[in-house]
Amino acid sequence: MAELSVLVEGGEVDDGVLSVLDLINGLDGFFTLSSCAGRMQVISVPEIGDKRNSVVWGKWHRAPGFEDVLSAAGRYEAEGRDGLLFLLVQSPIFHVACFGLEKGKRLRDLAVGAGFKYSSLKSVRGERVVVEVLGADRMDVPLGRDGRLAVDSEQLRFFYDVGCMVLERGKRHLERFKRELEVWRGGG
Amino acid sequence: MAELSVLVEGGEVDDGVLSVLDLINGLDGFFTLSSCAGRMQVISVPEIGDKRNSVVWGKWHRAPGFEDVLSAAGRYEAEGRDGLLFLLVQSPIFHVACFGLEKGKRLRDLAVGAGFKYSSLKSVRGERVVVEVLGADRMDVPLGRDGRLAVDSEQLRFFYDVGCMVLERGKRHLERFKRELEVWRGGG
Repeated sequence: MAELSVLVEGGEVDDGVLSVLDLINGLDGFFTLSSCAGRMQVISVPEIGDKRNSVVWGKWHRAPGFEDVLSAAGRYEAEGRDGLLFLLVQSPIFHVACFGLEKGKRLRDLAVGAGFKYSSLKSVRGERVVVEVLGADRMDVPLGRDGRLAVDSEQLRFFYDVGCMVLERGKRHLERFKRELEVWRGGG
Repeated sequence: MAELSVLVEGGEVDDGVLSVLDLINGLDGFFTLSSCAGRMQVISVPEIGDKRNSVVWGKWHRAPGFEDVLSAAGRYEAEGRDGLLFLLVQSPIFHVACFGLEKGKRLRDLAVGAGFKYSSLKSVRGERVVVEVLGADRMDVPLGRDGRLAVDSEQLRFFYDVGCMVLERGKRHLERFKRELEVWRGGG
């Protein structure tokens, strides 16, 4: 367990992901490299695409309360930070090393079938194939600029509601992925 | 040219993409399958993820005027359509068939180097490798629900401004990709 958590980027792993990681690592010739259970974030960047200098005002791997999101946006406003503030929702993601192209393709196809439509082979080096499991479930809403919010709390509530739906959709794909992996492990 | 346009999904190709398609198809062992120059859209869906039943209220492959976006949102409101309305910005995208894994990997690495960070091998079937060239430049903003806009025109302007920046970033990656392809073709 300690070993697994070291391998997980960001250091935050919840139950939904742990059981999937166990299932994948229990398959012959597969080894998980990193993962995220899907998340909602309130994050600011000095300019579009400058992730390196981003500031995270709130991050949640399960749907937070609306008050949490409101309060994160409020902290950004209070600090008068330059740049753009976003409400982001991201799909669950896994990077898995697979021994051989056939195994990699099978995992990728299984992930796509479970709803993770953006899954792909990230790299192929001899027999070492890395598969990225990723869904299309995503939302990126600009909330404000240079320390000023562009939306009021009722509108933020609307974005939060839609964001929760997007997050929930990612979680459903995670559940389906888990069930398909269980079938595979059972000898499917 | 007629043949090329048949191969292009959606049927809309602008100069920026045509020259890239020519460059790729001029390389030995590469053949483009589909492409999009990147776009901004005002689109509604009955529910999250139901692309099949989406309604497109406006679609632009170069930054539209703000009035165009406002007017597209107004048409959605006037029609009182159910479901969620979104302002979407999507990265340029290319699907390219490559003969052999090494060629596929080289194109993918070149695309990543040009800023298309989500590029990957979409499929590998014997010697036929399909590479997807795709950037992280994307925005998904819910604008309204069930025929009612949740934002006013000043806020829509803010989302439009950020969306134009995201679209522009995709175009810059397209330019870099084109330059790298020119170097490759020149015997790099």
